[in-house]
Amino acid sequence: MSEYQAIPSFDDLKEAHSIIQDHAHVTPVLTSEAVNERAGTSIYFKCENFQKVGAFKFRGACNAIFTLSDEEAAKGVATHSSGNHAQAVALAAKIRGIKAYVVMPKNAPKVKVNAVQGYGAEVTFCEPTLEAREGTLNEVVEKTNATIIHPYNDSRIVAGQGTSAIEFLESHPDLDTIITPVGGGGLLSGTLIAAKHINPAMKVYGAEPEIADDSYRSLKAGSIQPVLSTATIADGLRTQIGALPFSIIKDHVDDIITVSEADIIEAMRFIWERMNMIIEASCAVPVAAVFNHPEKFKGQQVGIIITGGNVDLGNLPW
Amino acid sequence: MSEYQAIPSFDDLKEAHSIIQDHAHVTPVLTSEAVNERAGTSIYFKCENFQKVGAFKFRGACNAIFTLSDEEAAKGVATHSSGNHAQAVALAAKIRGIKAYVVMPKNAPKVKVNAVQGYGAEVTFCEPTLEAREGTLNEVVEKTNATIIHPYNDSRIVAGQGTSAIEFLESHPDLDTIITPVGGGGLLSGTLIAAKHINPAMKVYGAEPEIADDSYRSLKAGSIQPVLSTATIADGLRTQIGALPFSIIKDHVDDIITVSEADIIEAMRFIWERMNMIIEASCAVPVAAVFNHPEKFKGQQVGIIITGGNVDLGNLPW
Repeated sequence: MSEYQAIPSFDDLKEAHSIIQDHAHVTPVLTSEAVNERAGTSIYFKCENFQKVGAFKFRGACNAIFTLSDEEAAKGVATHSSGNHAQAVALAAKIRGIKAYVVMPKNAPKVKVNAVQGYGAEVTFCEPTLEAREGTLNEVVEKTNATIIHPYNDSRIVAGQGTSAIEFLESHPDLDTIITPVGGGGLLSGTLIAAKHINPAMKVYGAEPEIADDSYRSLKAGSIQPVLSTATIADGLRTQIGALPFSIIKDHVDDIITVSEADIIEAMRFIWERMNMIIEASCAVPVAAVFNHPEKFKGQQVGIIITGGNVDLGNLPW
Repeated sequence: MSEYQAIPSFDDLKEAHSIIQDHAHVTPVLTSEAVNERAGTSIYFKCENFQKVGAFKFRGACNAIFTLSDEEAAKGVATHSSGNHAQAVALAAKIRGIKAYVVMPKNAPKVKVNAVQGYGAEVTFCEPTLEAREGTLNEVVEKTNATIIHPYNDSRIVAGQGTSAIEFLESHPDLDTIITPVGGGGLLSGTLIAAKHINPAMKVYGAEPEIADDSYRSLKAGSIQPVLSTATIADGLRTQIGALPFSIIKDHVDDIITVSEADIIEAMRFIWERMNMIIEASCAVPVAAVFNHPEKFKGQQVGIIITGGNVDLGNLPW
C-alpha cells in the first residue's frame, strides 16, 4: 500500500470533493437550542449520519474507488471490515459497476452483513480476530488481484474524509472550532488538512473514549501507542490509529479530549431525544467532550462532525 | 373561536411564512436510495422532525402567537394537549415573552411534561378525559383571560402548518405528489392550500391508520364522522378531524389512504434503520401508504412531510 501513503494536500481534498460530488450527499448542518443550552455554546452538527450508507466513510471509499484506473477497477476492490467502511466500499463499487470483496468476522451483526450483501458485495466470513481477517483478505486478493481499500491508512481515504470539513466550512465559514471522533484517524486527519488550510486560526480537536485512548497517548508520546482495550461502546473508535493519519494529526491537532463511557451514553441519548436523529455512540464522543468542557468552548461556534448513525435498534445502551 | 374560522388564503400562508421565518428552522429535505428501492419510486422527505420542538406544530403555534395583538399577548395563551402542540405553544410563547398555560392529563408522559415546563409554561393537570381537559382549560381561561390556541381548528394554525409545503415546493418544485398524515387535519389542509395554489395539477393525499379512519370515512360521507377507536400506535392521529380543516380537505384532497398498524410499525423501523432519523409512528403512516401502493406512485416524485420525532425511547414498538 506504499503508493497511497503520501500526505494529501488541500488540492487533493478539492479533487476528491469534485470526484465524489456526483455520488455523495451534501449532508445538512443542524442545530438545536436544547443542545446549545446544555453545552453553554453554539454547536453546529455536520450530519454524516445522513450520508449514503449512513456514515462519512462513503466519502473516502468513493474517492478511493473512483480514482482507480480502469484496469485496476476491472479486478475489483477488497477490504476487511465489520463496520461502515464495508458498506461504503460495497456501495461505491456498485456505483462504479465493479466487484467488491468484503471479509467479515463470522460473528458480525446480521444487519451489517445483509447491508453489505444488499449492495452486491461478495462476503467471505472468517474467525473474529485481526489475524484471521488479514489472512483471509490476503487469500481473497491473491485469488482476485483486487485492490485493497484500507479504511484509513490511505491517502485517497484521508482526502475523501476531508471533504466533509470542506463542505462544513463552505456553509459555515465562521466556525471557530471543529471536533471529530478519532479511531483510525482518517476523518480527523482529513479534517485537519481542510480546516487548517481554510482558516489557520481554527482549532481542531479529536475526541476519544477514555478506555480507548490510544490516539491521546500516541499524541502525548509522539509515537503510536497500542490500543489497550476494545471494550468501549463507541465501536467505531476501537481501532488503532493509523500511521498516515497519525503523521498528520501529531503535527496539527490542537488536542485530543477523552470522555468516559457513561458520558458517551448520556450524550448519545440526549442527541437522540432532543434532535430526533440517530447517532452512533462514536459521534456522541465529541458531543460529550463539549458538554464536559464548557469553559473551553464558551462563546465559540463549535462544529462537530456526526460520523454515522448505524445502530442496532434491538440493542440500545439504555 | 369564530373569528379564526375563515379558510386561509395562499396569501395568508405567505404572510405566516414571513412571520415565523425568524423563529422556525427551514427544515432539510432528505432522500434515501434504500427507501426509493423499497417504494419503487422517488420519495423526498421534508423533515419537520428537525423543526423546533421536534415537530411541524411549531409553525402553526408560532404564527398564531406572533399574530396576537400586544393586548391579547399580554394575557398569555392557553391550550390543552399532551403532545407536540403543547411544546409548540410553550416555546412560541417563550420566544414572544408571554405566558403559556397548558392543561395536560395527569397521566401524560413525564418527558413531555418536563419539556413543556422546560419552555417555561405553567402546566395544570387534569383527569385524562376530553371533558376534563376542556373543562380545566375553560377554568384557566376564565381566571387568566388568556387566548386559547387550538391545535388545528384555527385559521392561523392552518396557515402556519401550510408553510412547510411552501418551503418544500420552493426547494423541490418538481414534486408530483405530496402526502401528509391526517389527524386533526391542520397540516393536510394547510398543505392543500399551498400545493394546489402553487401547482394545481399536484396530487395531495392524506394518510391515516385504518383503525383511526375518521377522516377517510368523513371524506366518503361528506360530513364529519366520529373517531371510533383511539388504539392506534400513531398517537398524533387519534384526534377527530376539525371542522375548519375538513371544510378544506373535503373539497381539495385527492384521496385519503389508510394503512394497518403492522405496516405503520414496519415502515417506522425501516426509516429509523435506513435513514438514521427518529420519526414518530404518525409519520410512518404516509410512508406505509406509499410502500403499499407502488402502482399508484410509480415514476413520480413523491413528497412526504415527516411531521415529528418525539418518541419515548424507553417504549419502542419493537
